[in-house]
Amino acid sequence: MDGRLVEGVVYVGDDGRQRFYDARGYGRRTRGTDPVDSDGVALSPVEAAHLLVRGDLDAVVEGDRRLDARAFLDRVADPRRGESGFLPRFLAYADLRERGFYLSPARRGWPGTSDDPSGVDFAVYPRGQGPADGGVAHRVRAVGERHPVRVADLPEVLAVADEESDVTYFAADRPDVTGTSEYDPPAVEGDLLADRAVVYDPPARLYRRGFFGRPLAAHDADDALQLSLVEAAYLADRGALALSGADDPRGRGRAVEGDRFDRRLRTYADLRERGVVPKTGFKFGADFRTYADVDDVDDLGHSELLVRVLPVDRERTPRELALDVRLAHGVRKRMVFALVGEDVTYRSVERITP
Amino acid sequence: MDGRLVEGVVYVGDDGRQRFYDARGYGRRTRGTDPVDSDGVALSPVEAAHLLVRGDLDAVVEGDRRLDARAFLDRVADPRRGESGFLPRFLAYADLRERGFYLSPARRGWPGTSDDPSGVDFAVYPRGQGPADGGVAHRVRAVGERHPVRVADLPEVLAVADEESDVTYFAADRPDVTGTSEYDPPAVEGDLLADRAVVYDPPARLYRRGFFGRPLAAHDADDALQLSLVEAAYLADRGALALSGADDPRGRGRAVEGDRFDRRLRTYADLRERGVVPKTGFKFGADFRTYADVDDVDDLGHSELLVRVLPVDRERTPRELALDVRLAHGVRKRMVFALVGEDVTYRSVERITP
Repeated sequence: MDGRLVEGVVYVGDDGRQRFYDARGYGRRTRGTDPVDSDGVALSPVEAAHLLVRGDLDAVVEGDRRLDARAFLDRVADPRRGESGFLPRFLAYADLRERGFYLSPARRGWPGTSDDPSGVDFAVYPRGQGPADGGVAHRVRAVGERHPVRVADLPEVLAVADEESDVTYFAADRPDVTGTSEYDPPAVEGDLLADRAVVYDPPARLYRRGFFGRPLAAHDADDALQLSLVEAAYLADRGALALSGADDPRGRGRAVEGDRFDRRLRTYADLRERGVVPKTGFKFGADFRTYADVDDVDDLGHSELLVRVLPVDRERTPRELALDVRLAHGVRKRMVFALVGEDVTYRSVERITP
Repeated sequence: MDGRLVEGVVYVGDDGRQRFYDARGYGRRTRGTDPVDSDGVALSPVEAAHLLVRGDLDAVVEGDRRLDARAFLDRVADPRRGESGFLPRFLAYADLRERGFYLSPARRGWPGTSDDPSGVDFAVYPRGQGPADGGVAHRVRAVGERHPVRVADLPEVLAVADEESDVTYFAADRPDVTGTSEYDPPAVEGDLLADRAVVYDPPARLYRRGFFGRPLAAHDADDALQLSLVEAAYLADRGALALSGADDPRGRGRAVEGDRFDRRLRTYADLRERGVVPKTGFKFGADFRTYADVDDVDDLGHSELLVRVLPVDRERTPRELALDVRLAHGVRKRMVFALVGEDVTYRSVERITP
């Protein structure tokens, strides 16, 4: 059976509709406005390629050329002549089909597609359902591993085709970042020492209950307390830390970290305000790890989130995402990006298997 | 007991030598050339600070000023007046002491220090030994988490003081990267498709024995094979892959990855030459994972290494190192950096607990 490629859509007449649409959820039914008549089926190039590679379609005719699977792939995967990003979409489509899902390319007017299909490549139907059933399980965008994505714009599901054509799925969400670790710090005084601070003779509860700093002599919480610059700047901003001389933790932070310091400080303060205690995420290569319910540092639970702080418009390569998400999974934490713009907003990302 | 600060060294006379050097491994014995006489002990500022903070030394006198622990820390930690990088060194020193080690600052002529102490901050003695015993267990460099380090210059042990003053240790080595996966690929032909390649009707052994590519229809190794651009360029360079038209995988690789493609291709070829099969490390955020002993893809063992490819002069922040090393540990692989300059050389990095 052959299809006909017209204006980026492959039309199959005859019994194509019954074989492909009704029985196996490919394409959409043709309508009166389509450039081919007949009671057939309209396939996107991704769907047509899948049927060609499987041998269910023999060829696609374009003008006076008859394209077999290989020629069709050459034609549509070539970024100069075909669709940009065709291959990642094809690989994700094939992978989701292999996992037992029916799915439709997202195009205005196609099944499962909302009025604004931007940022979505596929509507994936619940297992066992197809385009005629009305439900949608996942909205998926597919990219290659070299395609950077703005974290703020991450779709519900991002399918990434890596350089060896394996497909990995990341699900993004807006997590509810809140905790019960509210704490009103007492006023203390200290010194800035290079890129950290020391508080001498602090009340023990500043560390034990507020989980600020780290005892200078480890295991002796009543001793002097070392603070990070972020902690020092947060306390100084609240009037809870007086520093000797003209010491300015925010200026010192900017001197050693640039703008990143301001972003991290805003995120730190926002997390504290949400009742969550941020501590350094250095060992995990992140900005912070967080504790939602701190009562006493001697009874500290597992930290729940790893937080990476980014400017709100920052892009990440899928490989960078994979690194963060895999690490967080390995240490049983949730990977969360803090996006700093006018406000601080949060996106969680995890790897899923559809 | 007081010390005297002269030209960056703190001298303690009286019974300082017996109390600090003989009994607890601090400092070195003073000699005739030292600017103070007496049969005492000479301490580096890090050692003096440690004794001051512990209360074992009351003060350090500099000219007509008498500095207590707080004033001495202010004095030596201030990068304008004291030593650059004092605090990370102090934190690492205190941490290693807390772990039960004696150690000496590396300075020309000090115990445990080789003729060229560059790049080393401390000679750490074997547990139970001190400066007079002659052995050295670790040579340690200490930096703050914001201090980038050249991977090629990583010391035997790098101690990193994070922003909250916790110390993490990384050990670097030159791994022996070899395997038994030699394979001479047969000649095949295929097409470049955007940023990947497809080989049609390849001999099954190209995938099964050589572990090149990935079947286009998953689970059907006799079908067409997808190759990454790196694999395609490697095979084309060896004359084992003929591509249709003027397709040039190396040029395509450079177009989508820039210089990074050349570095990855050289590393790929070097690993293959060493009998190790590199496959994509995307899921781990790395360039490659490697298999040392591939006989048949149906009987594939655990991949042993995660490889990140870098230019030989590239610096990494300790936080980036922590991310890679922690991830590799979590998936039971060894983290290896491939450094590409005139040759490809390898550095493994792992986290250790001294």
